[in-house]
Amino acid sequence: MKVIPLRLAGASVIEPIVHGDQRGFFMESYNQQVMQDEGITHTFIQDNQSLSADAGVIRGLHYQLNPKAQTKLIRVLTGAIYDVILDIRISSPTFGQWMSVILSEYNHRQLLVPKGFAHGFCTLVPNTQVLYKVDEYYSPLHDRGILWNDPTLSIDWPTSKAILSEKDKQQPLLKDAEINFN
Amino acid sequence: MKVIPLRLAGASVIEPIVHGDQRGFFMESYNQQVMQDEGITHTFIQDNQSLSADAGVIRGLHYQLNPKAQTKLIRVLTGAIYDVILDIRISSPTFGQWMSVILSEYNHRQLLVPKGFAHGFCTLVPNTQVLYKVDEYYSPLHDRGILWNDPTLSIDWPTSKAILSEKDKQQPLLKDAEINFN
Ligand SMILES: Cc1cn([C@H]2C[C@H](O)[C@@H](COP(=O)(O)OP(=O)(O)O[C@H]3O[C@@H](C)[C@H](O)[C@@H](O)[C@H]3O)O2)c(=O)[nH]c1=O
Ligand SMILES: Cc1cn([C@H]2C[C@H](O)[C@@H](COP(=O)(O)OP(=O)(O)O[C@H]3O[C@@H](C)[C@H](O)[C@@H](O)[C@H]3O)O2)c(=O)[nH]c1=O
Repeated sequence: MKVIPLRLAGASVIEPIVHGDQRGFFMESYNQQVMQDEGITHTFIQDNQSLSADAGVIRGLHYQLNPKAQTKLIRVLTGAIYDVILDIRISSPTFGQWMSVILSEYNHRQLLVPKGFAHGFCTLVPNTQVLYKVDEYYSPLHDRGILWNDPTLSIDWPTSKAILSEKDKQQPLLKDAEINFN
Repeated sequence: MKVIPLRLAGASVIEPIVHGDQRGFFMESYNQQVMQDEGITHTFIQDNQSLSADAGVIRGLHYQLNPKAQTKLIRVLTGAIYDVILDIRISSPTFGQWMSVILSEYNHRQLLVPKGFAHGFCTLVPNTQVLYKVDEYYSPLHDRGILWNDPTLSIDWPTSKAILSEKDKQQPLLKDAEINFN
């Protein structure tokens, strides 16, 4: 397993070891001990999976407030996504900055998203399935969002006709969002 | 989440709740608290994923000896499998009996396989990806197998040209297998 630290502190890309043979491949997509040896000591207690039927589905930008903030470990099972994280830790030198990572069924990359980030993605191909682990349960009461196309962020979404949930069409701008991360 | 007990004691089928909407679907494919509330109290520490490129790939029948025996929670991400479990608990009233369950990307079913079972599957369509959780790490030293087409088992595999690993072509018959489960 390889851990590649990213520009926004605390975030990293993880690449598992993939064993190919004549049948296909086998990989340990998650190994708690190997993670711990790399300093990733979260206890993941929930796995979430979404299927997006079309290319251009945007889900995000989402986060849960403290004390229910979640660390997320994200990967793609089928298809590909343009995955985005936005630093919303108030005292972070990179507050308000975002970055993107491509996760696909072919690069097998996983993105570790720390607490204090908003997260969202845009599907690049139809029938994209995303699977992610979280270390805190879903809490509708703490569930918050930031508008995907907030002009002050100007995220380079790779679509001009985004497909969004009703909830995500109406998220607040970053400047109006409720945030409680340090 | 629904838990359906199976004929072989300890094994069960689990059906998660799937939320469909105009984008696709969302599901909690695993929730430790919900599992515990249903009496499933294992701590899963490793996730394994395999891709089988062709229909007719058979992987199995596999198990790890005590003290490294594994509980497995198996599901399909893409495609479909004919999943087989074989009771190899020496003092079980159903020792030597097997049963099959169809797991597919469409029925979202998960199979809970207790310690003391050998496990294997046959892919029903190309590009089938299987994901499973285990509560004990992989241990090559304790890794064992039983021949997929042992005539005393007469498993109804849904293929006449199985694709197997070299290891699985040479597994022992049940009567010759090393077993240490009660
Ligand atoms: C996030 C979540 C939703 N649900 C339910 C609530 C809804 O009925 C349905 C769909 O929820 P939505 O919030 O619309 O799903 P979504 O796919 O838009 O939300 C996800 O987007 C990702 C970008 C984030 O990283 C995730 O943290 C999550 O917010 O699933 C759960 O049961 N458990 C959960 O953990
Ligand atoms: C099972 C396993 C294998 N490996 C490595 C060893 C090999 O290099 C490669 C492929 O291993 P194989 O045993 O050939 O994979 P396989 O897909 O034939 O094995 C699997 O079959 C399922 C039916 C069982 O339920 C599983 O428990 C497992 O035995 O992956 C791991 O690194 N970790 C693991 O947990």
